[in-house]
Amino acid sequence: MSSTWGEKVKISVFGESHGNGIGVVIDGLPAGFKVDNDKLFAQMARRAPGKDKTATPRKESDLPNVLSGMLNNITTGAPLCAIINNTNTKSGDYSNLLACPRPGHSDYTAYEKYNSFNDIRGGGHFSGRLTAPLVFAGSICRQILEEKGIKISAHISQIGNVKDDPFNPVNIDNDLMGRLSQSSFSLIDTSKEEAMREVVENARLNQDSVGGIIECAVTGLPTGLGGPMFGGVEGLISSIIFGIPAIKGIEFGKGFKLAEMLGSESNDPFEYKDGKVVTKTNNCGGILGGITNSMPVIFRACIKPTPSISKEQDTVDLQKKCNTKLSINGRHDPCIVPRAVSVIEACTAIALMNLV
Amino acid sequence: MSSTWGEKVKISVFGESHGNGIGVVIDGLPAGFKVDNDKLFAQMARRAPGKDKTATPRKESDLPNVLSGMLNNITTGAPLCAIINNTNTKSGDYSNLLACPRPGHSDYTAYEKYNSFNDIRGGGHFSGRLTAPLVFAGSICRQILEEKGIKISAHISQIGNVKDDPFNPVNIDNDLMGRLSQSSFSLIDTSKEEAMREVVENARLNQDSVGGIIECAVTGLPTGLGGPMFGGVEGLISSIIFGIPAIKGIEFGKGFKLAEMLGSESNDPFEYKDGKVVTKTNNCGGILGGITNSMPVIFRACIKPTPSISKEQDTVDLQKKCNTKLSINGRHDPCIVPRAVSVIEACTAIALMNLV
Amino acid sequence: MSSTWGEKVKISVFGESHGNGIGVVIDGLPAGFKVDNDKLFAQMARRAPGKDKTATPRKESDLPNVLSGMLNNITTGAPLCAIINNTNTKSGDYSNLLACPRPGHSDYTAYEKYNSFNDIRGGGHFSGRLTAPLVFAGSICRQILEEKGIKISAHISQIGNVKDDPFNPVNIDNDLMGRLSQSSFSLIDTSKEEAMREVVENARLNQDSVGGIIECAVTGLPTGLGGPMFGGVEGLISSIIFGIPAIKGIEFGKGFKLAEMLGSESNDPFEYKDGKVVTKTNNCGGILGGITNSMPVIFRACIKPTPSISKEQDTVDLQKKCNTKLSINGRHDPCIVPRAVSVIEACTAIALMNLV
Amino acid sequence: MSSTWGEKVKISVFGESHGNGIGVVIDGLPAGFKVDNDKLFAQMARRAPGKDKTATPRKESDLPNVLSGMLNNITTGAPLCAIINNTNTKSGDYSNLLACPRPGHSDYTAYEKYNSFNDIRGGGHFSGRLTAPLVFAGSICRQILEEKGIKISAHISQIGNVKDDPFNPVNIDNDLMGRLSQSSFSLIDTSKEEAMREVVENARLNQDSVGGIIECAVTGLPTGLGGPMFGGVEGLISSIIFGIPAIKGIEFGKGFKLAEMLGSESNDPFEYKDGKVVTKTNNCGGILGGITNSMPVIFRACIKPTPSISKEQDTVDLQKKCNTKLSINGRHDPCIVPRAVSVIEACTAIALMNLV
Repeated sequence: MSSTWGEKVKISVFGESHGNGIGVVIDGLPAGFKVDNDKLFAQMARRAPGKDKTATPRKESDLPNVLSGMLNNITTGAPLCAIINNTNTKSGDYSNLLACPRPGHSDYTAYEKYNSFNDIRGGGHFSGRLTAPLVFAGSICRQILEEKGIKISAHISQIGNVKDDPFNPVNIDNDLMGRLSQSSFSLIDTSKEEAMREVVENARLNQDSVGGIIECAVTGLPTGLGGPMFGGVEGLISSIIFGIPAIKGIEFGKGFKLAEMLGSESNDPFEYKDGKVVTKTNNCGGILGGITNSMPVIFRACIKPTPSISKEQDTVDLQKKCNTKLSINGRHDPCIVPRAVSVIEACTAIALMNLV
Repeated sequence: MSSTWGEKVKISVFGESHGNGIGVVIDGLPAGFKVDNDKLFAQMARRAPGKDKTATPRKESDLPNVLSGMLNNITTGAPLCAIINNTNTKSGDYSNLLACPRPGHSDYTAYEKYNSFNDIRGGGHFSGRLTAPLVFAGSICRQILEEKGIKISAHISQIGNVKDDPFNPVNIDNDLMGRLSQSSFSLIDTSKEEAMREVVENARLNQDSVGGIIECAVTGLPTGLGGPMFGGVEGLISSIIFGIPAIKGIEFGKGFKLAEMLGSESNDPFEYKDGKVVTKTNNCGGILGGITNSMPVIFRACIKPTPSISKEQDTVDLQKKCNTKLSINGRHDPCIVPRAVSVIEACTAIALMNLV
Repeated sequence: MSSTWGEKVKISVFGESHGNGIGVVIDGLPAGFKVDNDKLFAQMARRAPGKDKTATPRKESDLPNVLSGMLNNITTGAPLCAIINNTNTKSGDYSNLLACPRPGHSDYTAYEKYNSFNDIRGGGHFSGRLTAPLVFAGSICRQILEEKGIKISAHISQIGNVKDDPFNPVNIDNDLMGRLSQSSFSLIDTSKEEAMREVVENARLNQDSVGGIIECAVTGLPTGLGGPMFGGVEGLISSIIFGIPAIKGIEFGKGFKLAEMLGSESNDPFEYKDGKVVTKTNNCGGILGGITNSMPVIFRACIKPTPSISKEQDTVDLQKKCNTKLSINGRHDPCIVPRAVSVIEACTAIALMNLV
Repeated sequence: MSSTWGEKVKISVFGESHGNGIGVVIDGLPAGFKVDNDKLFAQMARRAPGKDKTATPRKESDLPNVLSGMLNNITTGAPLCAIINNTNTKSGDYSNLLACPRPGHSDYTAYEKYNSFNDIRGGGHFSGRLTAPLVFAGSICRQILEEKGIKISAHISQIGNVKDDPFNPVNIDNDLMGRLSQSSFSLIDTSKEEAMREVVENARLNQDSVGGIIECAVTGLPTGLGGPMFGGVEGLISSIIFGIPAIKGIEFGKGFKLAEMLGSESNDPFEYKDGKVVTKTNNCGGILGGITNSMPVIFRACIKPTPSISKEQDTVDLQKKCNTKLSINGRHDPCIVPRAVSVIEACTAIALMNLV
């Protein structure tokens, strides 16, 4: 099932980039929760394109139309459906893609899976535009979690070879989390913005694109959430995060660095602090045996460079059955990492609503 | 749900390290498949402990007893249940762990989740021993996939700072895959074995342990498997791989290296080769838009150092509510990476049975 | 999860009777199927209210707006979302129901479940109006099944004490099925219409309502669909049929009559007919061991009388915490059975899409 | 998926009648619950065969062997697996069934579904023997529910044309429930036992069998469980009850009788009683809008006559492709209804564990 996720709180995402509209049904929200629209729209604005040169200049009027599940901004407990109408689509740009799949895109694999019946315009259902309803759904979940004292915040860990500082894994400042969650270019060390933007701008000027890494942290989770084996928090979070287009990897805590560590280095020693059990380090990313241990849950996800680049590329012509060249026109983000920060946070919130 | 996974082919794993037995129910296998027991036991032997100094000296008689779902070694289509009895358990070793959780282990989080009622002996249901039924289930799935021309093979990519060569992502040799799948220390460049074993032996002599990385490849998959968003192959594979104890990260294709690549570098150009669409590179790990693209599916998973080490560690006493020291006795692998290779392969096979 | 159903083809229904709109997301439809809109709208018209005195005079413009998943009336394989806007709602009628729950309705239980935050207007998400998207989704599934030679058809088996003839369980005429599927008052013996309408009209004139039974048959199913235990066809069909408001029972084949039969009567003897294995009788309703046996699948579902009646009834005042009387105004069907025929057919189609 | 059921508490049933063993894995039980073995075995004894002439004289040693998930009879929170070994099987009796399917049995449909690879001996995985692990699992669930004040009790409502009294739907006596739950021939009006046994004995003497109906009641459920549409209590219960072999129908409250009732008769008026909202009647079976309303949940399920009868029957020879006659030898219950009472109760308990 491609576009449905969750057990306790289930989302069903629909829509195609250049179709009539996109949206999401959220089934399983608690009744009686008053949604703060300002906070909601602020998150959607962080994801929205067209803010600056790192993003596609396409303007979206991403304000969702809530069809059901809310009365006077309070959840009714019934499934909540929100629609975002598609406007400002330029489908003419994509006419030759049916025959000539874009490298790095789903064009070819979707062509094979759907026998060419998929809506290829703008990437169809594979488009990054489908992350807008994810941010909508996730932002509501996030507000519910915040009421329980659970905070989620992410930042751009890396774009190209420019790296931000990591979270302090044993002590993450509430103010920092608040600041990051409102920024449209979320960085712990804001002095890195200029260098990162330069990397992106260089890529853009070279008709190219660039990838990156996002680090996400969750604080305030109760101890004891998750479970052994397939009930683990890592598996839960990864299964939704890989639903975000362009994500190709995820690691928890020290992640791949653990390969070079000794057990005596990677094990996080327990200690009592203010009468509570904590760990002195947090190499496990707040998860032991698949279960939360009271420390911040921390993970990193990598994002591949935007596959749509103007530079000429080699591809095939599926109709003429020969090799050919392709130059992609249209509006594309040279780097989607800054916009993806709120998407990662939103998906994390949806995941955690299924855990709490 | 902690220990159940899958939709088309569903596994339900049960058992505790020092309980009466462990096992698995596999629901959804096709009827009429003749299982090759030699191949099956060979895979279980690769995972079994006690083969050399990298592993715990505990001997398991891991031969499973099939209770149902097979008649004369041929699947009946009914749920297949296999039991492995626990023998040679030394539970006395674990008496003090109830109060003093081992750093890096599930002891503390399980204590919190289960209100101290979990069976902590040998790690209980969190034990790496629970991977034996996974290998059993996966090896049957793998034999079924092999009949369809799908091959799965993994190798030790890294232990400590010693690295094996990677798979050639565009052309993986059948003979190599066959050789790796039979080895108990699977390496592409076998000359690395000595250095890796030295890393492990040094850790062992220092009462310590070490982590690593496993790389896994799948060839022969039809084009068009998987789907957009949450139906993607990456999400499917990751959700079962994170079910293996000690896995803390997964990346597909170039993975985290994509952060520093340009789109023009990371995009895999299409071309016709022998009348078939292929890609010249395989940075995406055989998956575009969540869907297989005919190239090998390749991923890497990192494994943390075995948390059980003899070296004295800081921990807490949950009964006396104070800080304390802990030295873990008992038999433990200084490095579980070599044994985990067949587990990764098995879980990949189970995942793919749900896709094909 | 209240409003999501299915595995292979999953529907997610949303909306509230007097909210902004209702609709459905269908995830998992095959790509490349051309939907026949005339057939689709004909089914929705059968369910629509206001056709005659058996139904509420409220007019719905039930034509759905397809937001996604179709391009030029052909399915793309992506989730299909269809919206029906709510118009002609008279919410003023329901103002006193928040305090005084209507007997036989969900008002009280929803009040308890959702802490009074549910949208009670017109029944909210519990309204029979939510069956419109079910008919939409089911009609598409039905068209796909018809292409495979599978026909679904139902009729009014009983209203009050007036009974239609049953299907001939071993031989159901294609023409009959075609005729029933187009009728807005589906009867095998059309001479019963007058008596049935009289029962309904009498109830209406007495400010009352009446229940009934619908019988549904499916022909053309391949042998061997379904499975033992929880994979059985009976469980699959019942789990979606009970999702239709007002359904309180379901029986397959001879159903409750089997209690008084002997094994020698109820067992359906096998025989070869035209080289094919059939049964001489069909007391099992085409299902043995949960699996289709090549004979028509036949079941009956009972529908309680419309709970909304104008007659004064005893109820409670939840705010004043006392007993009180209630007279329900507003437009209500004195009998929903005729309209429910297409809903039963539609849900059966959705169920079978998950089986074929 | 044939043999797996549940979300919060998931059961996975395995085994074949004449295989090595049968059993169940229960995933999701709370940790720390002390199981009362006497109560558990008492329920298994109620289901066990061989008690009198209504049942097959085959003796089962149905005492289960718990492999995991319990320590000192207390649940650990890990999956609980219980095995019942098969003994006293006489497989010789079934040798000709591969070619000549028994009318009313799964032989033919399983043959088609599994391409003849199913284990047909004793009915294989379709055997009523598979209800033993259901009773095991359900009895544990039931003990957990009882601690929360929830009682489940069923009785033989009808065998042949002999009927027991129904439950008083608005007031079910605790003592009655207790008595029924311990009886091996559960009747409200115990004076009916003789007449029922006579019906069964007559069937047996005629080499025949007979069906029946079981009525089940649940008291003590909190108000507000369940949900609209597919989240309804009726759908939940029916989906597991139809997993019991031989069940062909289910109805809640007045069920099929509602077809002949008026709304003014079927609606259950609300009233305050002892400060609590109750209904004066209980025609809805304690469920409104799919949600519990504080009254007893009541349903009835019908059971077809045992298909295995000694009387000669018409069938086909699938190998010779011709019509033939069949006389079934072996040990079979002339009526399974008395034994099925505890199975219905057990499955209801499993269902409710997923709701509470």
